[in-house]
Amino acid sequence: MVANPERRAQITDAALEVLGANGSRGLTHRAVNRAADVPTGTTANYFPSRAGLLLAMAHRIFDRLSPEPDRVTQLADLPPERATVEYAAYATERLLADSTLALALIELRLEAARQPEVRQALEPFLRQGFTDDVNFHDGQGLPGGRPAVLVTHHLVMGVVLDALTIPLDPHQSPVDEVRQTVAALFT
Amino acid sequence: MVANPERRAQITDAALEVLGANGSRGLTHRAVNRAADVPTGTTANYFPSRAGLLLAMAHRIFDRLSPEPDRVTQLADLPPERATVEYAAYATERLLADSTLALALIELRLEAARQPEVRQALEPFLRQGFTDDVNFHDGQGLPGGRPAVLVTHHLVMGVVLDALTIPLDPHQSPVDEVRQTVAALFT
Repeated sequence: MVANPERRAQITDAALEVLGANGSRGLTHRAVNRAADVPTGTTANYFPSRAGLLLAMAHRIFDRLSPEPDRVTQLADLPPERATVEYAAYATERLLADSTLALALIELRLEAARQPEVRQALEPFLRQGFTDDVNFHDGQGLPGGRPAVLVTHHLVMGVVLDALTIPLDPHQSPVDEVRQTVAALFT
Repeated sequence: MVANPERRAQITDAALEVLGANGSRGLTHRAVNRAADVPTGTTANYFPSRAGLLLAMAHRIFDRLSPEPDRVTQLADLPPERATVEYAAYATERLLADSTLALALIELRLEAARQPEVRQALEPFLRQGFTDDVNFHDGQGLPGGRPAVLVTHHLVMGVVLDALTIPLDPHQSPVDEVRQTVAALFT
């Protein structure tokens, strides 16, 4: 088989749709073939192992959720305290804007808790992403260092999980909540 | 069929084990019968609908995660700012101490995002629990009101989701992180 990067991306995106919409147990080669509208056997050719498919999906989520360069440039012009708040708000916005991707990211993590081979594939990738975030944060001169980046990640994931499932307080805006909390913590 | 509360609880606990360990798609009447070691048809007799089973599971999670009365009494003796921090730390501890229950709670929320009838069953129950928490918080004279309770819930869920799947920073203690963050926010 000659690897075709576009088809690989098409299959990975279809897999993310299936995972976000139906949960991890719905993620079968057959369901992905159907969602990607490709012939039987295609997904299995590209991704013989489930862990390999899930790792490609994680890469793809982070590609698709990556910030717009123009927006990052704008935010970098803000004073560090304001920038810290607005980066966190922007990350929340991006996750909420694509609920299937955000739910798929949570499903990938749950799958890692259940299956050691998935965990082994995802762990180095997620940790590297976190280290990159810490380096970016420090490089921009933002306050609080590694613990600030960690708690911001956790806050954003908790807010997004709630907003995309059963919001405990439907009158609270998730983005405002993140903005106010990060401002209270780090400015 | 004469309803038997003990058997009902046994089936509900078995369903929580199945959900926490295998995710929502693994949650079938057959899998629950097997996990509860009851005859074919038993789970379907007690819970003809999936939404009814999931609602009973949510009730049971909150029963099983409810705080020890002695511990609550101890915490109520602390000054309000200290008490706010220690209630949040204690909630985190309880979730981490029973990872299957904590993961099942996240799975229930994801299931609600996928299925309207599950959402309709769970939403009033989760909202009532949140209102009870706000009333308790206010009644104890703790600072920050409803927004403080909301953000603490979100923080704890984000920290627990990370800790039970792929911890981004395995050197950080989840309970210490919650304690320090809540202290920074509300004291």
